[in-house]
Amino acid sequence: MTHPLDIAVVGATGSVGETLVQILEELSFPVATLHLLASMESAGSSVMFAGKKIKVREVDSFDFAQVKLAFFAASPAVSRSFADKAQHAGCTVIDLSGGLDDALALVPEANAEQIAKLKLPARICSPSTSAVALAVALAPLKGLVDIERVQVMASLAVSAQGREAVNELARQTAELLNARPLEPHFFDRQVAFNLLAQVGAADEQGHTAVERRLVSELRVLLGQPQLKISVSCVQVPVFFGDSFSVAVQSRRPVDLEAVKQALEAAGSIELVEDDDYPTPVGDAVGQDVVYVGRVRHGIDEPEQLNLWLTTDNLRKGAALNAVQVAQLLIKHMA
Amino acid sequence: MTHPLDIAVVGATGSVGETLVQILEELSFPVATLHLLASMESAGSSVMFAGKKIKVREVDSFDFAQVKLAFFAASPAVSRSFADKAQHAGCTVIDLSGGLDDALALVPEANAEQIAKLKLPARICSPSTSAVALAVALAPLKGLVDIERVQVMASLAVSAQGREAVNELARQTAELLNARPLEPHFFDRQVAFNLLAQVGAADEQGHTAVERRLVSELRVLLGQPQLKISVSCVQVPVFFGDSFSVAVQSRRPVDLEAVKQALEAAGSIELVEDDDYPTPVGDAVGQDVVYVGRVRHGIDEPEQLNLWLTTDNLRKGAALNAVQVAQLLIKHMA
Repeated sequence: MTHPLDIAVVGATGSVGETLVQILEELSFPVATLHLLASMESAGSSVMFAGKKIKVREVDSFDFAQVKLAFFAASPAVSRSFADKAQHAGCTVIDLSGGLDDALALVPEANAEQIAKLKLPARICSPSTSAVALAVALAPLKGLVDIERVQVMASLAVSAQGREAVNELARQTAELLNARPLEPHFFDRQVAFNLLAQVGAADEQGHTAVERRLVSELRVLLGQPQLKISVSCVQVPVFFGDSFSVAVQSRRPVDLEAVKQALEAAGSIELVEDDDYPTPVGDAVGQDVVYVGRVRHGIDEPEQLNLWLTTDNLRKGAALNAVQVAQLLIKHMA
Repeated sequence: MTHPLDIAVVGATGSVGETLVQILEELSFPVATLHLLASMESAGSSVMFAGKKIKVREVDSFDFAQVKLAFFAASPAVSRSFADKAQHAGCTVIDLSGGLDDALALVPEANAEQIAKLKLPARICSPSTSAVALAVALAPLKGLVDIERVQVMASLAVSAQGREAVNELARQTAELLNARPLEPHFFDRQVAFNLLAQVGAADEQGHTAVERRLVSELRVLLGQPQLKISVSCVQVPVFFGDSFSVAVQSRRPVDLEAVKQALEAAGSIELVEDDDYPTPVGDAVGQDVVYVGRVRHGIDEPEQLNLWLTTDNLRKGAALNAVQVAQLLIKHMA
């Protein structure tokens, strides 16, 4: 039996924070007292947990010494402002924002063994959806595929940018269908029935923060700090569910049957047979696994492995992974 | 002065055929008599050309000896049924359907020099949108980038599958926004606010016809029959405009400034500056060029060149390229 823990969730009113609270309940995570925190604007509202209404309080005035574990599901800036304070108060931080460069990226299916090396209170990063999905799909291939390079095209749902983005896609779509003039607010242009080649601002080298984050996190998760990873993240007019077109370059011909067996055997993967393929809506959304389909060689190239992945960006891609990390952690704490 | 030609357009009532007739007029192509042809079901209707209504007749009963040039913009099966007949009657065939395996793929910006080697009447293939876009974007890099591999993720608009597919995306979207039950007809599942990982059926190796077509056409167009090309084609909920996320692997570090200059100088390319990016809707649709943006190295990898391309799949990707091939051809005929 695990002793129940006092826990804080920072950013409890956002999409990810809300899903996180829901998953703590679904998985019967051993919570003693749950503290829900948010910025000044969102504090004051209530969130249901285990049949009780819990009031959301201001993060600024919270004493982190009250909890042993805090999830940070707000913005990177909020994580950077409060993670030190929390850790100094003896609280282990699981950050979902990507704001903490020195936090260790953890995905239980990929690098659970790193937990044992942590000194508590620790700073842990629950990686981006893209890194989680790729780590879950590629970890079972260790020893089977001698990975030289991973090439990813990520098609990201608008919900990763919060509720405003979801509302904007719905509003833009309705305006277009009703032949009303389109007025973009949240996005700087039409996102309905369109593709935006870039998610967030690009740096001087032309890369976006989500692209750089995927590369650095995936290298840690796969334990290959020099791995060549190239990535393009595109915003697609999909509400929920991220998808990934992946090409893995191996140094040797890839044994497709062995790959399929390994994927089939992995607990967090749903492998879809060759006569079908998984989609974000209809398959991945609301589910706790990474769907894998279109497992195939490259054309005229047995050294290449192609995959299509899709996963719920708010659940497995974010909140669920963070809670699964916490589950590992409490075993380690015990 | 070019002598006006008698011309046939097979599939004149489809999206591509209609755009083709429009472009013949826009570019003042030297047409003497224009014969519009279609299958039995579509014959009988009329299409406007140069201020005149032209009746669409049945292709079955047409005597191809009446024309010197025929565009085939119907299905691959129609091309396979009538291309031989047309060629035997002395008519050069420009096929847009991908149905003729032995037709020479031509994109003027990439391999115009091949025209001179043709023996008339010839069989020419105006390649798939994906191959056209990639050939236009990569041809100017010859000598600048020592291409070892091209990796493509193609996000294809529904209009490539005809008007029914366009109507289905609109209908599905409206049903979802109005919370009515979704009933897929043309597609076998929800395409609105979703991504379909596969366009058309996959063969035993897991590849689709559009993916195989892209690889074989692009090898011809770039004059590199052994080029390693890996490709995934995904159906996105976009009406018009195909987009491509491209990673080019070079044997040497890529000189980005030289690449940008070459792209800037190319006639059929609109290069978008680094602080912005092109989108299908808003930029590419209705235009005659391939938009190129997000020109950058790979992360930690100067030997990789990343590009984002977007183009009007009915114009530059299909009808316009076919007419531009015909323009070259009449110079060669003269």
